Amino acid sequence: MSKLHIYNTLSGKKEEFKSIIDNHVGMYVCGPTVYSDVHIGNVRTFLSFDIVYRYLKYLGYSVRYVRNITDVGHLLNDADSGEDKIGKQAKLLNLEPMEVVQHYTNGFHDVMKAYNITPPSIEPSATGHLIEQIELVQEIIDQGFAYEAGGSVYFDVKKYNESHHYGKLSGRKIEDLLSNTRELDGQSEKRNPLDFAIWKNADESHIMRWNSPWGEGFPGWHLECTVMSTKYLGDTFDIHGGGMDLKFPHHECEIAQSKAGGKSDPANYWMHTNMLTMNGAKMSKSVGNVVSIEELKTGNHDLLEKGFSENVIRFFILQSHYSSTLDISSSALSASEKGCEKLMKAMETLKELKTSESSTVDVTALQEKCVTSMNDDFNTPILIAHLFDGVKMINGIAADKETITEIDLAQLTKTMNDFVVDVLGLKATTKTVSQDSVTEELMQLFIQLRKEAKDNKNFALADEIRNKLTSLSIELKDSREGTTWEKN
Amino acid sequence: MSKLHIYNTLSGKKEEFKSIIDNHVGMYVCGPTVYSDVHIGNVRTFLSFDIVYRYLKYLGYSVRYVRNITDVGHLLNDADSGEDKIGKQAKLLNLEPMEVVQHYTNGFHDVMKAYNITPPSIEPSATGHLIEQIELVQEIIDQGFAYEAGGSVYFDVKKYNESHHYGKLSGRKIEDLLSNTRELDGQSEKRNPLDFAIWKNADESHIMRWNSPWGEGFPGWHLECTVMSTKYLGDTFDIHGGGMDLKFPHHECEIAQSKAGGKSDPANYWMHTNMLTMNGAKMSKSVGNVVSIEELKTGNHDLLEKGFSENVIRFFILQSHYSSTLDISSSALSASEKGCEKLMKAMETLKELKTSESSTVDVTALQEKCVTSMNDDFNTPILIAHLFDGVKMINGIAADKETITEIDLAQLTKTMNDFVVDVLGLKATTKTVSQDSVTEELMQLFIQLRKEAKDNKNFALADEIRNKLTSLSIELKDSREGTTWEKN
Repeated sequence: MSKLHIYNTLSGKKEEFKSIIDNHVGMYVCGPTVYSDVHIGNVRTFLSFDIVYRYLKYLGYSVRYVRNITDVGHLLNDADSGEDKIGKQAKLLNLEPMEVVQHYTNGFHDVMKAYNITPPSIEPSATGHLIEQIELVQEIIDQGFAYEAGGSVYFDVKKYNESHHYGKLSGRKIEDLLSNTRELDGQSEKRNPLDFAIWKNADESHIMRWNSPWGEGFPGWHLECTVMSTKYLGDTFDIHGGGMDLKFPHHECEIAQSKAGGKSDPANYWMHTNMLTMNGAKMSKSVGNVVSIEELKTGNHDLLEKGFSENVIRFFILQSHYSSTLDISSSALSASEKGCEKLMKAMETLKELKTSESSTVDVTALQEKCVTSMNDDFNTPILIAHLFDGVKMINGIAADKETITEIDLAQLTKTMNDFVVDVLGLKATTKTVSQDSVTEELMQLFIQLRKEAKDNKNFALADEIRNKLTSLSIELKDSREGTTWEKN
Repeated sequence: MSKLHIYNTLSGKKEEFKSIIDNHVGMYVCGPTVYSDVHIGNVRTFLSFDIVYRYLKYLGYSVRYVRNITDVGHLLNDADSGEDKIGKQAKLLNLEPMEVVQHYTNGFHDVMKAYNITPPSIEPSATGHLIEQIELVQEIIDQGFAYEAGGSVYFDVKKYNESHHYGKLSGRKIEDLLSNTRELDGQSEKRNPLDFAIWKNADESHIMRWNSPWGEGFPGWHLECTVMSTKYLGDTFDIHGGGMDLKFPHHECEIAQSKAGGKSDPANYWMHTNMLTMNGAKMSKSVGNVVSIEELKTGNHDLLEKGFSENVIRFFILQSHYSSTLDISSSALSASEKGCEKLMKAMETLKELKTSESSTVDVTALQEKCVTSMNDDFNTPILIAHLFDGVKMINGIAADKETITEIDLAQLTKTMNDFVVDVLGLKATTKTVSQDSVTEELMQLFIQLRKEAKDNKNFALADEIRNKLTSLSIELKDSREGTTWEKN
């Protein structure tokens, strides 16, 4: 059996995964900044790590999964001169910043739930860890890698790079970074343009502020993740994840802060998810191809022919590897919808398969292929391809073209459930429209009435029932096994 | 028109409500301690303040509603010698305390959502306000109302009572409290048995701990609410609410802490919700009458004949005034279920009423009675009684016994929607079992098929349809207006 390998950004290679503590994994993922609605790019990132989380559990690991909420300190631009994003939004709406935070946190949680993304074990917030952040700032100053200026504290990148390696994760060289940076004007408090704030002085107008040894202020954005990851997972933990856009400077700074604060390298494996495009281009207002989560669901957008369920979008996202760019389009989503329904249909057929004395299908090989694909850096598109081999198997058995023994059927059922429901987190439903048990009961009644009508040679009534159902986009399918139905 | 009056625990009287700032209300409610599943008593408290929130909004107020999450510092007993509840649970499960917090916070949010309880504007947590709590402890020490002992800081109740009034909310007298208290043994660090910890030294085994001027420790439970309410609502705000069990000592201590910390009286109106019983007795494990939220829904409990939807339980709770004790029983819930369905049925009938030249019903009087009942300290049982006058009106009009003009119908519709959906927060559904639009379409098809059968004198088929539906507990009701259906 193969072993789990993960593409580690730190080494630039796929490496065999070895956890620090046997059977336990600590994983940290940078969560959302809650100053606006979550977008589909965020969903892709958190869904990708949901798969990592689910597959690690499938492998038998006990996983402590920490994903934070950034509710303060994310500046408008990396030059540290921008206004706090959440503070700005709050003033706009004439609200308390934490009211903005609450609103968008609730919205974020609703979307995560709709997409069946498992909640993390701990979801800490930046404002919940001020004391720890102030302590780390002090420690970095004490170690000589940060300096205070005008009530702010800056990380001294050049000084750090003398004894450590700034750029080890992103592969950037400090000389190149310096030559690409504008000279500091006389106004800047920084000694060097690469330096970044780990504590920021709050001017009069800044509403989110706390007392500190350097006066009233707020923590730098990079700092919170260093503090929260190590607080709950230890100084060095197994996996650190996030969107590719966070690799530099955010994650690079996290490593620097940890080491400058006297801790070790924070994570053994760094994972980064790739970006999304819409109709071939990066989503942007000027291009007009920004599609919201809500619009994806309702289809209320010029670029969408129709709306798609979260289950279908989840399936669609997982048809690409997390490290590839993913292009969204209405036609690609429609294709995924068909694929998803075919898979789910097979999951239902699976429940009714009949067994034989011998098997003409190789279930063990199927299960091994599923594991092998996921062991190869969580390769969900390959896994899905194998699951469609399973679909072929199931439909072949249902059509009496293949046979399966009782033992093999049990293994096939387990494999399909493990990978479709538990690992990929797809909801086992054949229908796009939700249906409760009442609907099912009523449909069985129609099917029965129609059968009776046919048995009584009352074909007019039988046809009427079929036609009326068709007018509701409900299709009846007759087969040797009986009649089933589907809503289109 | 009457004006809103609130029973104020502080004065022991119903008082006319006057907000500090015109058209704005600040309200703080003590939220859950997230170390166990939320119980139906919690639901009642938060539902009661949901009604306050909703009705204030109905009156046109802009409300900032703060409800906290207690994720640290709630001790096992009021003697302050118990272990931190969350910490204990964490050790038991061999989990990080914040993992326990996350688990039960998620569960709490799920229940709030199921009961259609509006999320607060801000939901701050105790661990998110350590700096502010430490600052308040220091301020109380500086003002001379607290002392440090062995790394903990205690509030000096006797000293405070010399210049202020400890007991003003609960009506307790410090002399009585003292005479009812055991003498301190030589071990206690307290100067006086009534003193309470505002900062607690963390011993070696305590896992939730933060640095402070008094060493590593954690804040006293009473402190967090003082800090979080005033941070987001100002030193004095309009309404402070909570369960009756919090009046003493928790809320009494909040007042003392605010005033000892140099602030004013925290809230102008203090509101307390009453307790629940089950089959006439306080829920307790020894009596065997503890019913969980889950059991209420499924009916899986010896004391319940069946399960009830959250909408029905919500209606049931609102049939009592928040300040009365409320007894839960299977028969009372069943009665509420019938009442709730009757009300919701009328809400549907309302949509199809025909108008006349004149009205025989007085809609303005109905609307005024609804407002008057809610203005009388949020009297939901009286409001519901008036809404049933509305039901009578609606059914009378539907049966041609009463008439209504177009203008009056618009007002009736608005009144019923305002109070049933917006103020009481009931979901307008006639059925206990959820039904989506597919079910409705299918049922209309059955009704149509049966009508055609009858028109064609095919009574056998018409009866068969009715009987088959009956077997699914679906009842068809024929009337002059056509056929409707109901699932029992």
